[in-house]
Amino acid sequence: MNFCSECGHPVRVGIPDDDNRPRHICDNCHTIHYQNPKIVAGTVPVYQDKVLLCKRAIEPRVGYWTLPAGFMENEETTADAAARETWEEAQAQVDIRHLYMLIDTTAISQVYMMFLADMPEPVFGAGPESLEVGLFSEDEIPWDELAFPTIEKTLRQYFSDRRQGHFPLHQCQVTKEDRDRFFTSLHHQAVSNG
Amino acid sequence: MNFCSECGHPVRVGIPDDDNRPRHICDNCHTIHYQNPKIVAGTVPVYQDKVLLCKRAIEPRVGYWTLPAGFMENEETTADAAARETWEEAQAQVDIRHLYMLIDTTAISQVYMMFLADMPEPVFGAGPESLEVGLFSEDEIPWDELAFPTIEKTLRQYFSDRRQGHFPLHQCQVTKEDRDRFFTSLHHQAVSNG
Ligand SMILES: [Zn+2]
Ligand SMILES: [Zn+2]
Repeated sequence: MNFCSECGHPVRVGIPDDDNRPRHICDNCHTIHYQNPKIVAGTVPVYQDKVLLCKRAIEPRVGYWTLPAGFMENEETTADAAARETWEEAQAQVDIRHLYMLIDTTAISQVYMMFLADMPEPVFGAGPESLEVGLFSEDEIPWDELAFPTIEKTLRQYFSDRRQGHFPLHQCQVTKEDRDRFFTSLHHQAVSNG
Repeated sequence: MNFCSECGHPVRVGIPDDDNRPRHICDNCHTIHYQNPKIVAGTVPVYQDKVLLCKRAIEPRVGYWTLPAGFMENEETTADAAARETWEEAQAQVDIRHLYMLIDTTAISQVYMMFLADMPEPVFGAGPESLEVGLFSEDEIPWDELAFPTIEKTLRQYFSDRRQGHFPLHQCQVTKEDRDRFFTSLHHQAVSNG
Protein backbone atom coordinates (compact mmCIF):
# COMPACT_ATOMS: atom_id res chain seq x y z
CA MET A 1 0.00 0.00 0.00
CA ASN A 2 1.45 3.32 -1.17
CA PHE A 3 -1.55 5.65 -1.39
CA CYS A 4 -4.67 6.30 0.69
CA SER A 5 -7.62 4.52 -0.91
CA GLU A 6 -9.96 7.20 0.46
CA CYS A 7 -8.25 10.44 -0.63
CA GLY A 8 -5.32 9.39 -2.86
CA HIS A 9 -2.64 11.00 -0.64
CA PRO A 10 0.59 9.02 -0.05
CA VAL A 11 0.45 6.98 3.17
CA ARG A 12 3.19 6.47 5.72
CA VAL A 13 3.83 3.49 7.99
CA GLY A 14 3.67 4.25 11.69
CA ILE A 15 2.14 3.17 14.98
CA PRO A 16 -1.05 5.15 15.66
CA ASP A 17 -1.77 6.54 19.13
CA ASP A 18 -3.48 3.91 21.28
CA ASP A 19 -2.16 1.11 19.07
CA ASN A 20 0.89 -1.13 19.24
CA ARG A 21 1.37 -2.22 15.63
CA PRO A 22 2.58 -0.42 12.52
CA ARG A 23 -0.26 0.57 10.17
CA HIS A 24 -0.57 2.51 6.94
CA ILE A 25 -1.61 6.00 8.00
CA CYS A 26 -2.95 8.86 5.86
CA ASP A 27 -1.91 12.25 7.24
CA ASN A 28 -4.27 14.03 4.85
CA CYS A 29 -7.68 12.47 5.72
CA HIS A 30 -6.47 10.69 8.90
CA THR A 31 -7.66 7.25 7.83
CA ILE A 32 -5.80 4.30 9.36
CA HIS A 33 -5.69 1.39 6.91
CA TYR A 34 -5.82 -1.98 8.66
CA GLN A 35 -4.83 -5.24 7.02
CA ASN A 36 -6.37 -8.46 8.28
CA PRO A 37 -6.13 -12.19 7.55
CA LYS A 38 -8.22 -13.64 4.75
CA ILE A 39 -10.44 -16.69 5.01
CA VAL A 40 -9.95 -19.48 2.48
CA ALA A 41 -13.11 -21.62 2.51
CA GLY A 42 -13.31 -25.04 0.91
CA THR A 43 -14.55 -28.58 1.18
CA VAL A 44 -13.46 -32.18 1.42
CA PRO A 45 -16.07 -33.53 -1.06
CA VAL A 46 -16.64 -37.21 -0.33
CA TYR A 47 -18.25 -39.82 -2.56
CA GLN A 48 -18.12 -43.36 -1.15
CA ASP A 49 -14.42 -43.99 -0.33
CA LYS A 50 -13.13 -41.21 -2.57
CA VAL A 51 -12.51 -37.47 -2.37
CA LEU A 52 -12.75 -34.95 -5.18
CA LEU A 53 -9.59 -33.12 -6.23
CA CYS A 54 -8.97 -30.39 -8.81
CA LYS A 55 -5.85 -29.85 -10.90
CA ARG A 56 -5.18 -26.13 -10.79
CA ALA A 57 -5.42 -24.13 -14.04
CA ILE A 58 -4.34 -20.86 -12.39
CA GLU A 59 -1.36 -19.52 -10.48
CA PRO A 60 -0.10 -20.15 -7.90
CA ARG A 61 0.75 -23.83 -8.38
CA VAL A 62 -0.67 -24.47 -11.86
CA GLY A 63 -0.84 -28.19 -12.57
CA TYR A 64 -0.85 -29.27 -8.91
CA TRP A 65 -3.83 -30.89 -7.20
CA THR A 66 -6.00 -29.21 -4.59
CA LEU A 67 -9.27 -29.56 -2.74
CA PRO A 68 -11.80 -27.00 -3.96
CA ALA A 69 -11.18 -23.84 -1.91
CA GLY A 70 -10.86 -20.11 -2.37
CA PHE A 71 -11.21 -16.68 -0.81
CA MET A 72 -14.48 -16.08 1.00
CA GLU A 73 -16.45 -13.13 -0.39
CA ASN A 74 -18.25 -10.41 1.52
CA GLU A 75 -21.91 -11.04 2.41
CA GLU A 76 -21.78 -14.84 2.27
CA THR A 77 -21.53 -17.42 5.04
CA THR A 78 -18.43 -19.57 5.46
CA ALA A 79 -20.37 -22.71 4.53
CA ASP A 80 -21.88 -20.99 1.47
CA ALA A 81 -18.40 -19.85 0.43
CA ALA A 82 -17.11 -23.43 0.68
CA ALA A 83 -20.03 -24.78 -1.37
CA ARG A 84 -19.66 -21.98 -3.95
CA GLU A 85 -15.97 -22.70 -4.44
CA THR A 86 -16.78 -26.40 -4.85
CA TRP A 87 -19.28 -25.54 -7.54
CA GLU A 88 -17.01 -23.06 -9.32
CA GLU A 89 -13.86 -25.18 -9.32
CA ALA A 90 -15.27 -28.70 -9.53
CA GLN A 91 -18.85 -28.20 -10.74
CA ALA A 92 -20.04 -30.45 -7.95
CA GLN A 93 -23.10 -29.93 -5.74
CA VAL A 94 -22.29 -30.89 -2.16
CA ASP A 95 -24.13 -31.17 1.13
CA ILE A 96 -22.01 -29.44 3.74
CA ARG A 97 -21.68 -31.47 6.95
CA HIS A 98 -19.62 -29.32 9.32
CA LEU A 99 -16.39 -27.41 9.78
CA TYR A 100 -13.66 -30.01 9.78
CA MET A 101 -10.22 -28.33 9.55
CA LEU A 102 -9.40 -24.87 10.86
CA ILE A 103 -5.83 -24.19 9.76
CA ASP A 104 -3.96 -21.03 10.68
CA THR A 105 -1.33 -20.28 8.05
CA THR A 106 0.32 -17.41 9.87
CA ALA A 107 3.17 -16.89 7.39
CA ILE A 108 0.70 -15.79 4.71
CA SER A 109 -2.07 -14.55 7.05
CA GLN A 110 -4.70 -16.93 5.74
CA VAL A 111 -7.20 -18.93 7.78
CA TYR A 112 -8.25 -22.12 6.02
CA MET A 113 -11.73 -23.34 6.86
CA MET A 114 -12.31 -26.73 5.26
CA PHE A 115 -15.77 -28.29 5.57
CA LEU A 116 -16.56 -31.98 5.33
CA ALA A 117 -19.10 -32.40 2.52
CA ASP A 118 -21.07 -35.23 0.94
CA MET A 119 -21.48 -35.64 -2.81
CA PRO A 120 -24.96 -37.15 -3.35
CA GLU A 121 -23.93 -38.13 -6.90
CA PRO A 122 -20.51 -38.58 -8.55
CA VAL A 123 -21.20 -35.64 -10.85
CA PHE A 124 -18.45 -33.07 -11.40
CA GLY A 125 -16.42 -31.25 -14.03
CA ALA A 126 -13.54 -28.85 -14.52
CA GLY A 127 -14.56 -25.24 -13.81
CA PRO A 128 -12.58 -22.37 -15.40
CA GLU A 129 -9.92 -22.51 -12.64
CA SER A 130 -9.34 -26.27 -13.03
CA LEU A 131 -7.59 -28.29 -15.73
CA GLU A 132 -9.06 -31.58 -14.57
CA VAL A 133 -11.21 -32.87 -11.70
CA GLY A 134 -11.43 -36.39 -10.35
CA LEU A 135 -12.38 -38.71 -7.49
CA PHE A 136 -9.45 -40.35 -5.68
CA SER A 137 -9.31 -43.13 -3.10
CA GLU A 138 -6.55 -42.93 -0.47
CA ASP A 139 -4.03 -44.95 -2.49
CA GLU A 140 -4.78 -42.96 -5.65
CA ILE A 141 -4.12 -39.51 -4.12
CA PRO A 142 -1.23 -37.79 -5.96
CA TRP A 143 0.62 -37.10 -2.69
CA ASP A 144 3.70 -35.73 -4.47
CA GLU A 145 1.70 -33.37 -6.64
CA LEU A 146 -0.45 -31.54 -4.09
CA ALA A 147 -0.66 -27.76 -4.38
CA PHE A 148 -0.38 -26.61 -0.75
CA PRO A 149 0.62 -27.98 2.66
CA THR A 150 -2.88 -27.17 4.00
CA ILE A 151 -4.30 -29.55 1.40
CA GLU A 152 -1.90 -32.35 2.31
CA LYS A 153 -2.64 -31.87 6.02
CA THR A 154 -6.39 -31.98 5.41
CA LEU A 155 -6.24 -35.10 3.24
CA ARG A 156 -3.95 -36.99 5.66
CA GLN A 157 -6.27 -36.11 8.55
CA TYR A 158 -9.33 -37.15 6.58
CA PHE A 159 -8.05 -40.64 5.72
CA SER A 160 -6.76 -41.10 9.27
CA ASP A 161 -10.14 -40.10 10.74
CA ARG A 162 -11.87 -42.32 8.22
CA ARG A 163 -10.18 -45.36 9.77
CA GLN A 164 -11.57 -44.27 13.17
CA GLY A 165 -14.98 -43.52 11.68
CA HIS A 166 -15.40 -40.07 13.18
CA PHE A 167 -14.51 -36.60 12.00
CA PRO A 168 -14.17 -34.06 14.80
CA LEU A 169 -13.07 -30.47 14.17
CA HIS A 170 -9.29 -30.20 14.04
CA GLN A 171 -7.60 -26.91 14.76
CA CYS A 172 -4.00 -26.70 13.67
CA GLN A 173 -1.35 -24.50 12.14
CA VAL A 174 0.81 -24.56 9.04
CA THR A 175 3.96 -22.68 10.00
CA LYS A 176 6.55 -21.00 7.80
CA GLU A 177 8.79 -24.04 8.45
CA ASP A 178 6.01 -26.39 7.32
CA ARG A 179 5.67 -24.39 4.14
CA ASP A 180 9.41 -24.30 3.46
CA ARG A 181 9.63 -28.07 3.98
CA PHE A 182 6.61 -28.74 1.75
CA PHE A 183 7.71 -26.60 -1.18
CA THR A 184 11.38 -27.58 -0.92
CA SER A 185 10.65 -31.30 -0.98
CA LEU A 186 8.46 -30.82 -4.03
CA HIS A 187 11.16 -28.78 -5.73
CA HIS A 188 13.79 -31.45 -5.07
CA GLN A 189 11.47 -34.02 -6.45
CA ALA A 190 10.85 -31.97 -9.56
CA VAL A 191 14.61 -31.62 -10.06
CA SER A 192 15.27 -35.30 -9.57
CA ASN A 193 12.45 -36.11 -11.97
CA GLY A 194 13.57 -33.58 -14.57
CA MET B 1 -12.47 2.98 -1.85
CA ASN B 2 -11.88 5.87 -4.26
CA PHE B 3 -8.20 5.62 -5.21
CA CYS B 4 -5.80 2.80 -6.05
CA SER B 5 -3.68 2.04 -2.99
CA GLU B 6 -0.81 0.94 -5.27
CA CYS B 7 -0.53 3.87 -7.71
CA GLY B 8 -2.92 6.57 -6.44
CA HIS B 9 -5.04 6.64 -9.63
CA PRO B 10 -8.86 6.85 -9.20
CA VAL B 11 -10.50 3.41 -9.28
CA ARG B 12 -13.73 2.41 -10.97
CA VAL B 13 -16.22 -0.28 -9.97
CA GLY B 14 -16.69 -3.00 -12.57
CA ILE B 15 -16.74 -6.74 -13.09
CA PRO B 16 -13.30 -7.96 -14.21
CA ASP B 17 -12.94 -10.50 -17.03
CA ASP B 18 -13.26 -14.05 -15.65
CA ASP B 19 -15.07 -12.77 -12.56
CA ASN B 20 -18.75 -12.42 -11.66
CA ARG B 21 -18.70 -9.74 -8.96
CA PRO B 22 -18.12 -5.99 -9.01
CA ARG B 23 -14.63 -5.03 -7.78
CA HIS B 24 -12.63 -1.84 -7.48
CA ILE B 25 -10.42 -1.78 -10.58
CA CYS B 26 -7.45 0.46 -11.35
CA ASP B 27 -7.17 1.16 -15.07
CA ASN B 28 -3.71 2.69 -14.58
CA CYS B 29 -1.74 -0.14 -12.93
CA HIS B 30 -4.42 -2.85 -13.56
CA THR B 31 -4.66 -3.89 -9.91
CA ILE B 32 -7.98 -5.43 -8.87
CA HIS B 33 -8.78 -4.57 -5.25
CA TYR B 34 -10.64 -7.36 -3.49
CA GLN B 35 -12.55 -6.89 -0.25
CA ASN B 36 -13.04 -9.86 2.04
CA PRO B 37 -14.75 -10.65 5.34
CA LYS B 38 -12.90 -9.93 8.57
CA ILE B 39 -12.46 -12.36 11.45
CA VAL B 40 -13.50 -11.22 14.91
CA ALA B 41 -11.79 -13.52 17.42
CA GLY B 42 -12.76 -13.70 21.08
CA THR B 43 -13.38 -15.87 24.09
CA VAL B 44 -16.02 -16.99 26.55
CA PRO B 45 -13.75 -16.72 29.64
CA VAL B 46 -15.14 -19.03 32.33
CA TYR B 47 -14.37 -19.02 36.05
CA GLN B 48 -16.47 -21.49 38.06
CA ASP B 49 -20.14 -20.72 37.16
CA LYS B 50 -19.37 -17.24 35.82
CA VAL B 51 -18.25 -15.63 32.57
CA LEU B 52 -16.16 -12.50 32.15
CA LEU B 53 -17.75 -9.51 30.44
CA CYS B 54 -16.36 -6.09 29.50
CA LYS B 55 -18.24 -2.78 29.40
CA ARG B 56 -17.14 -1.09 26.19
CA ALA B 57 -15.19 2.17 26.43
CA ILE B 58 -15.05 2.66 22.65
CA GLU B 59 -17.47 3.02 19.75
CA PRO B 60 -19.50 1.29 18.55
CA ARG B 61 -21.78 0.60 21.52
CA VAL B 62 -19.96 2.47 24.27
CA GLY B 63 -21.32 1.49 27.67
CA TYR B 64 -22.75 -1.87 26.55
CA TRP B 65 -21.39 -5.23 27.68
CA THR B 66 -19.45 -7.63 25.49
CA LEU B 67 -17.31 -10.72 25.64
CA PRO B 68 -13.66 -9.90 24.90
CA ALA B 69 -13.29 -10.00 21.11
CA GLY B 70 -11.74 -8.01 18.29
CA PHE B 71 -10.30 -8.06 14.81
CA MET B 72 -7.71 -10.74 14.18
CA GLU B 73 -4.33 -9.36 13.10
CA ASN B 74 -2.04 -10.63 10.36
CA GLU B 75 0.55 -13.26 11.33
CA GLU B 76 -1.25 -14.59 14.41
CA THR B 77 -3.36 -17.70 14.90
CA THR B 78 -7.09 -17.48 15.57
CA ALA B 79 -6.62 -18.86 19.10
CA ASP B 80 -3.77 -16.44 19.79
CA ALA B 81 -5.93 -13.57 18.52
CA ALA B 82 -8.72 -14.60 20.90
CA ALA B 83 -6.32 -14.83 23.86
CA ARG B 84 -4.69 -11.50 22.93
CA GLU B 85 -8.04 -9.70 22.81
CA THR B 86 -8.94 -11.21 26.19
CA TRP B 87 -5.71 -9.86 27.63
CA GLU B 88 -6.06 -6.43 26.01
CA GLU B 89 -9.71 -5.84 26.90
CA ALA B 90 -10.06 -7.71 30.19
CA GLN B 91 -6.46 -8.17 31.38
CA ALA B 92 -7.20 -11.83 31.96
CA GLN B 93 -4.92 -14.77 31.15
CA VAL B 94 -6.98 -17.64 29.75
CA ASP B 95 -6.39 -21.22 28.67
CA ILE B 96 -8.09 -21.65 25.31
CA ARG B 97 -10.13 -24.86 25.11
CA HIS B 98 -11.53 -24.97 21.56
CA LEU B 99 -13.51 -23.10 18.94
CA TYR B 100 -17.04 -22.89 20.31
CA MET B 101 -19.12 -20.47 18.21
CA LEU B 102 -18.58 -19.78 14.51
CA ILE B 103 -21.03 -17.01 13.64
CA ASP B 104 -21.43 -15.65 10.13
CA THR B 105 -22.65 -12.06 10.27
CA THR B 106 -23.23 -11.63 6.57
CA ALA B 107 -24.77 -8.14 6.76
CA ILE B 108 -21.48 -6.70 7.99
CA SER B 109 -19.15 -9.34 6.45
CA GLN B 110 -17.66 -10.42 9.74
CA VAL B 111 -16.96 -13.98 10.88
CA TYR B 112 -17.06 -14.31 14.67
CA MET B 113 -14.86 -17.05 16.09
CA MET B 114 -15.50 -17.38 19.80
CA PHE B 115 -13.34 -19.81 21.79
CA LEU B 116 -14.29 -21.44 25.05
CA ALA B 117 -11.59 -20.52 27.58
CA ASP B 118 -10.80 -21.26 31.22
CA MET B 119 -9.67 -18.63 33.69
CA PRO B 120 -7.25 -20.38 36.08
CA GLU B 121 -7.65 -17.48 38.53
CA PRO B 122 -10.34 -14.78 38.90
CA VAL B 123 -7.81 -12.10 37.98
CA PHE B 124 -8.84 -9.39 35.50
CA GLY B 125 -9.05 -5.66 34.97
CA ALA B 126 -10.28 -2.99 32.57
CA GLY B 127 -7.95 -2.59 29.58
CA PRO B 128 -7.93 0.70 27.63
CA GLU B 129 -10.97 -0.34 25.55
CA SER B 130 -13.08 -1.25 28.60
CA LEU B 131 -14.79 0.90 31.24
CA GLU B 132 -15.33 -2.00 33.61
CA VAL B 133 -14.83 -5.78 33.64
CA GLY B 134 -16.60 -8.35 35.78
CA LEU B 135 -17.60 -11.97 36.31
CA PHE B 136 -21.29 -12.74 35.87
CA SER B 137 -23.36 -15.84 36.64
CA GLU B 138 -26.30 -16.60 34.34
CA ASP B 139 -28.86 -14.64 36.39
CA GLU B 140 -26.48 -11.69 36.72
CA ILE B 141 -25.86 -11.21 32.97
CA PRO B 142 -27.06 -7.77 31.85
CA TRP B 143 -29.17 -9.26 29.04
CA ASP B 144 -30.71 -5.90 28.10
CA GLU B 145 -27.37 -4.14 27.93
CA LEU B 146 -25.37 -6.42 25.64
CA ALA B 147 -23.40 -4.79 22.83
CA PHE B 148 -24.06 -7.10 19.87
CA PRO B 149 -26.42 -9.92 18.84
CA THR B 150 -23.42 -12.25 18.37
CA ILE B 151 -22.61 -11.78 22.07
CA GLU B 152 -26.18 -12.51 23.18
CA LYS B 153 -26.28 -15.62 20.97
CA THR B 154 -22.98 -16.89 22.37
CA LEU B 155 -23.97 -16.34 26.00
CA ARG B 156 -27.41 -17.97 25.61
CA GLN B 157 -25.77 -20.97 23.92
CA TYR B 158 -23.15 -21.20 26.63
CA PHE B 159 -25.59 -21.32 29.55
CA SER B 160 -27.81 -23.75 27.65
CA ASP B 161 -24.88 -26.07 26.93
CA ARG B 162 -23.75 -25.71 30.52
CA ARG B 163 -26.96 -27.38 31.67
CA GLN B 164 -26.18 -30.30 29.31
CA GLY B 165 -22.55 -30.36 30.41
CA HIS B 166 -20.99 -30.38 26.95
CA PHE B 167 -19.88 -27.67 24.58
CA PRO B 168 -19.75 -28.73 20.94
CA LEU B 169 -18.88 -26.31 18.14
CA HIS B 170 -21.94 -24.38 17.02
CA GLN B 171 -22.07 -22.89 13.56
CA CYS B 172 -24.76 -20.30 13.05
CA GLN B 173 -25.62 -17.01 11.43
CA VAL B 174 -26.67 -13.57 12.60
CA THR B 175 -28.76 -12.16 9.75
CA LYS B 176 -29.63 -8.57 8.94
CA GLU B 177 -33.08 -9.27 10.43
CA ASP B 178 -31.49 -10.57 13.64
CA ARG B 179 -29.47 -7.39 13.86
CA ASP B 180 -32.45 -5.12 13.17
CA ARG B 181 -34.47 -6.92 15.85
CA PHE B 182 -31.63 -6.77 18.37
CA PHE B 183 -30.84 -3.10 17.96
CA THR B 184 -34.48 -2.01 17.65
CA SER B 185 -35.54 -3.76 20.82
CA LEU B 186 -32.65 -2.13 22.67
CA HIS B 187 -33.55 1.24 21.24
CA HIS B 188 -37.19 0.88 22.32
CA GLN B 189 -35.99 -0.05 25.74
CA ALA B 190 -33.75 3.00 25.91
CA VAL B 191 -36.67 5.21 24.89
CA SER B 192 -39.05 3.68 27.42
CA ASN B 193 -36.39 4.00 30.11
CA GLY B 194 -35.54 7.57 29.16
ZN1 LIG C 1 -6.42 9.76 3.00
ZN1 LIG D 1 -3.33 1.51 -9.61
